[in-house]
Amino acid sequence: VAGKIRAPDEFALIAGLFAPLAAGYSDAYGLTDDVAYLDVSGRDPGGGRLRRGEELVVKTDAIVATVHFLADDPPDLVARKLLRVNLSDLAAKGARPLVYTLAVMLPREVDLGWLERFAAGLRADQDEFGVMLVGGDMNATPGPSAFSLTILGAIPAGQRLLRSAAVVGDAVFMSGTLGDGALGLRALHGEFAELAKDERGYLAGRYRLPLPRLALGRRLRGSIHAAMDISDGLLGDLGHIAKASKAGGLIEVERLPLSPPARKLLERAPALLKTVLTGGDDYELLFTAPPEAEAALAAIGLELDIPVTRVGAIVAGKGVRVLGRGGREIRLSRSGYRHF
Amino acid sequence: VAGKIRAPDEFALIAGLFAPLAAGYSDAYGLTDDVAYLDVSGRDPGGGRLRRGEELVVKTDAIVATVHFLADDPPDLVARKLLRVNLSDLAAKGARPLVYTLAVMLPREVDLGWLERFAAGLRADQDEFGVMLVGGDMNATPGPSAFSLTILGAIPAGQRLLRSAAVVGDAVFMSGTLGDGALGLRALHGEFAELAKDERGYLAGRYRLPLPRLALGRRLRGSIHAAMDISDGLLGDLGHIAKASKAGGLIEVERLPLSPPARKLLERAPALLKTVLTGGDDYELLFTAPPEAEAALAAIGLELDIPVTRVGAIVAGKGVRVLGRGGREIRLSRSGYRHF
Repeated sequence: VAGKIRAPDEFALIAGLFAPLAAGYSDAYGLTDDVAYLDVSGRDPGGGRLRRGEELVVKTDAIVATVHFLADDPPDLVARKLLRVNLSDLAAKGARPLVYTLAVMLPREVDLGWLERFAAGLRADQDEFGVMLVGGDMNATPGPSAFSLTILGAIPAGQRLLRSAAVVGDAVFMSGTLGDGALGLRALHGEFAELAKDERGYLAGRYRLPLPRLALGRRLRGSIHAAMDISDGLLGDLGHIAKASKAGGLIEVERLPLSPPARKLLERAPALLKTVLTGGDDYELLFTAPPEAEAALAAIGLELDIPVTRVGAIVAGKGVRVLGRGGREIRLSRSGYRHF
Repeated sequence: VAGKIRAPDEFALIAGLFAPLAAGYSDAYGLTDDVAYLDVSGRDPGGGRLRRGEELVVKTDAIVATVHFLADDPPDLVARKLLRVNLSDLAAKGARPLVYTLAVMLPREVDLGWLERFAAGLRADQDEFGVMLVGGDMNATPGPSAFSLTILGAIPAGQRLLRSAAVVGDAVFMSGTLGDGALGLRALHGEFAELAKDERGYLAGRYRLPLPRLALGRRLRGSIHAAMDISDGLLGDLGHIAKASKAGGLIEVERLPLSPPARKLLERAPALLKTVLTGGDDYELLFTAPPEAEAALAAIGLELDIPVTRVGAIVAGKGVRVLGRGGREIRLSRSGYRHF
């Protein structure tokens, strides 16, 4: 049919670059069949397969060149971020990653070297996170490259971590540090010359290579109420939890966990608070739990060497309020892409 | 994060246009959570869920504007074809469709009317084929619109219909008629003025709205060996089966099932045989079975009112040969996008 890649050849690209990524998963048949299979019986405990008593989690996320990444971004990091953004959603649901499919849309003149490095990035993260490519599609586009990834994960049946499970009175927690990703993007665009090179590099790395908190998500299951990952910014994403839970949210700025470079920037330019709260690309876990769980949650964080910080609360009402020094409310005109 | 649709607003579009498509599937939480769930325990026999003893089938297929469809194509048909192309793969594997996710990439200036008609097309085919939207992603692109769809289906465990299961001595069968889709595309481009308007309309319809042979695929399971759907053209796709099965293939042109308009065109312009054999977009089932199964397979076709025709054979050797009148070999320079 129209639209298939011609040069060097769709089938050769799949066989050379992508089939090796499916080699560990026999039910993908080396990407030479039309579909992949997933044994859900629990009888086969092999990699990528469901265990007895588990249910499936499904997530799709796409990226487009010039929008989510740039032509001169390292292709391996582009691939790894795409995979990690999807893994981050699984992490927030306490899920174990299984397999993924990838739809690839490429200009007719394929840059084979770019694509090889892209595949190498997938390989690196497949090995790191124990997930495997099982299928996909490859097409030509007259526009920028684009990639859509659908990932399947597993949780024990009945242990869903929904956005809607927050309860008024819950404390709000997050993993890691806030704002590094959004500040990192600005650092990549040449801002923040006041920082040392390694500080800018740290922030840029946080933007380019999120850390899906898979182990933490799985450990939290059972101890927490609502959960999601922070991709659109803490303010907007806590708004999602609050709305789904028919409640309001509160963020205490003084409690926000900041990396040393982010703290330094914020001390010099307090207006960056908006970037920190709404810039997105954090891919940290955001979750709610009864306040008395704080010590236990912090202990889990210590054990996994990932800070777990109480940053706010679920309250009666609607929307999310941001409280600054002394409990005074701070108003931001935009949060993520939602008006408040 | 960057790249989310701004106007009218990603969340409003999802809530208004896409959430209704997930309303019948409670485990998608109205597309307001980060992931969807799939109960595989067999305990919940509701729509979209796995039954006891089934395993999952996974397929991803994408389309790009200007490549797979044109800006002035009816948006409902664009959506339905995308869904049907994926359903056709499930049909060829004898699978029952369950649920799908959809990644939507749109220009920043969204044509809301276009998108509404696109969603209406999905709705129509969801109702027709018993499949439901459960998740996805929506992003801006500076390029043409693009859509990537991942579908999950179910088959009884152990009843996979692989490309590689053909056996030397098998007869090759196909459903429906061949070449209508590829001829229909050319008719849409203004060719074939010698046909009556309704004949051109028939061919165009076959291009725009494939018929996923789901019922036939399920009935064939157990009676046939290898199977796939014809999307890249009979010649190329039989080549896929032959290669996967480490055998050769034979197509007998005299046996090819042609619709009346296709037959009329081919009688006047025999060179169109190449379009018929390699043009693709047929979305009919292609499968192999022992020759003695022919009567039983034809009877299944009769019962479902879908022609099932023997069109060739699996033979020792490599590649696919095309035999014309009197068994003389016909050579085509290109098949699909593969050289032979």
